[in-house]
Amino acid sequence: MGDPAGIGPEITWKAWERLRGDGDKAFAVIAPPAVMRSVSRAEHPVAVIDSLSQAPDAFPDTLPILPIEGSRAVPGQPDTMHADAITGSISTAVRLALAGEAAAVVTNPIAKDVLYRAGFSFPGHTEYLGTLCEGVAPPYPPGPVMMLTAPDGERAPLRVALATIHIPLSETKSALTSDAVLSAARTLLGALRVDFGLEHPRLAVCGLNPHAGENGALGSEERDIIDPVCRLLRAEGHDVTDALPADTLFHAEARQTYDGVLAMYHDQGLIPVKTLDFHRGVNVTLGLPIVRTSPDHGTAFGIAGQGIARPDSLIEALRVAREIAHHRAG
Amino acid sequence: MGDPAGIGPEITWKAWERLRGDGDKAFAVIAPPAVMRSVSRAEHPVAVIDSLSQAPDAFPDTLPILPIEGSRAVPGQPDTMHADAITGSISTAVRLALAGEAAAVVTNPIAKDVLYRAGFSFPGHTEYLGTLCEGVAPPYPPGPVMMLTAPDGERAPLRVALATIHIPLSETKSALTSDAVLSAARTLLGALRVDFGLEHPRLAVCGLNPHAGENGALGSEERDIIDPVCRLLRAEGHDVTDALPADTLFHAEARQTYDGVLAMYHDQGLIPVKTLDFHRGVNVTLGLPIVRTSPDHGTAFGIAGQGIARPDSLIEALRVAREIAHHRAG
Repeated sequence: MGDPAGIGPEITWKAWERLRGDGDKAFAVIAPPAVMRSVSRAEHPVAVIDSLSQAPDAFPDTLPILPIEGSRAVPGQPDTMHADAITGSISTAVRLALAGEAAAVVTNPIAKDVLYRAGFSFPGHTEYLGTLCEGVAPPYPPGPVMMLTAPDGERAPLRVALATIHIPLSETKSALTSDAVLSAARTLLGALRVDFGLEHPRLAVCGLNPHAGENGALGSEERDIIDPVCRLLRAEGHDVTDALPADTLFHAEARQTYDGVLAMYHDQGLIPVKTLDFHRGVNVTLGLPIVRTSPDHGTAFGIAGQGIARPDSLIEALRVAREIAHHRAG
Repeated sequence: MGDPAGIGPEITWKAWERLRGDGDKAFAVIAPPAVMRSVSRAEHPVAVIDSLSQAPDAFPDTLPILPIEGSRAVPGQPDTMHADAITGSISTAVRLALAGEAAAVVTNPIAKDVLYRAGFSFPGHTEYLGTLCEGVAPPYPPGPVMMLTAPDGERAPLRVALATIHIPLSETKSALTSDAVLSAARTLLGALRVDFGLEHPRLAVCGLNPHAGENGALGSEERDIIDPVCRLLRAEGHDVTDALPADTLFHAEARQTYDGVLAMYHDQGLIPVKTLDFHRGVNVTLGLPIVRTSPDHGTAFGIAGQGIARPDSLIEALRVAREIAHHRAG
């Protein structure tokens, strides 16, 4: 569901309208029925189901809802009274995925400060999911690692994972340890293989500094931290580059040379993905025992309730979730 | 000329072949004649001219050369013996531009380490140009400020200037003072007005941190340094944003909302430009008394002499130089 005062309910309804003709794309939304009724159209009243197994039959005619407690929200007006429903939607989804009843979890945007005021104690969505999944091993080296992916025309999608995430830029240097780079690279390589079905994935690795440090003249992290990790991975048989200049790594020809990129910090990885396809970027959490994707935008309280929110990213998040679930099942 | 062992001579010849049909696009290359003869075709022997004023007449039939001392180079084999010709080509071009004989200077790539070994004491091209131009005021607040620009389909070109350039990422925080941001912004605003003919340019400013610091949660530089500069400029009547998240600033719709961007560090600004149009990116030095552009690639010693180098960026650099010269003259 995400935050019911944001655009989550609206784009969920729009995604259903777009996908309902294809039974293979069935999904259900875990939300208070009142929330989804507030965005539905009269000719397609929502269907409250008891079990996810009923979702495929209901899907062609109406949006299936797996109900939880809660009330409808005022669009654009977040309220801590919805916090229990927001976290309840997430925890229910994870429980169903861990039990094998759901193939994947797709999370709509939440506003962290609303949850914080209600006593939520996790830094974000991803950490909360990590805790809910504790004790269950993923099918490859564990994360969580944040990956952004977006369609890239006729090419394979652009897939960029981050070695460091939501920290001030000045803390990147201290966060970028050999362990952090190695761990993120292992998770990404595992995900490219298991989640995206690439038998021998090609990984390109970004440098931290301009021109990837220019042989030490513009920084030492490539020589001291990143390149040794790359050498170690190559020695294990992985197809991994050394640290490469990030500014020349994302044009069309360069994108043919790899299956995934490990970026060293947030903007380095997100700028190219969102520049190339702003509306269909998808956030994928790699290295969890469950499949989890998310649209790559926020709650957009400013435009909630106006009917103008675009479901493109959610629809792509649903597609990527199906793709990963398919590969994990196969 | 740039380094004669790199692709400079070859792309200069190819640019002439592409542009010779249009007399308004005449240029001359300042080089030892032997260097240019080594890349010319027999049916169009190069023309050695005495003065730039002869270039337009010669241009339709052959590439005009303003000769300097020097010998031909072995492609792919840089040599300190060419250092005097390399720097001489630059200093001659600047002298002609300062004297009003040349409308603009376009510099082909040089390899700094080759020049260093020959005793060159400037950090790079741009600083050398700055010294050659000392004592002459530019027509707007002085730089030098590095700007990258690239064509953007039917839209106005993307233009991104950098507040900090070739330093390790970890030094960005200390280099990013209020003075540095303000000075770069003033130069960029002046250049958009004077060099690119925009009467009231709209400037978008990047934050330093992920999500532009997310109200201080992910870094304080936006609040303490960047936003106060933006407010000051707005108080002076400029159309300037506050610090914006860099990852959502470069997609097609966002690019409609500004005429120029001030990025805080190298990769933040270069990643979007080179992702969008790798082959036609152009480096423009803002805030010099002369017009100076440069192709946005290196000497490419690895492919020199093979005939496969692309002149796209040089041709675009020549076009941007003409555009700026036209605006400055008008």
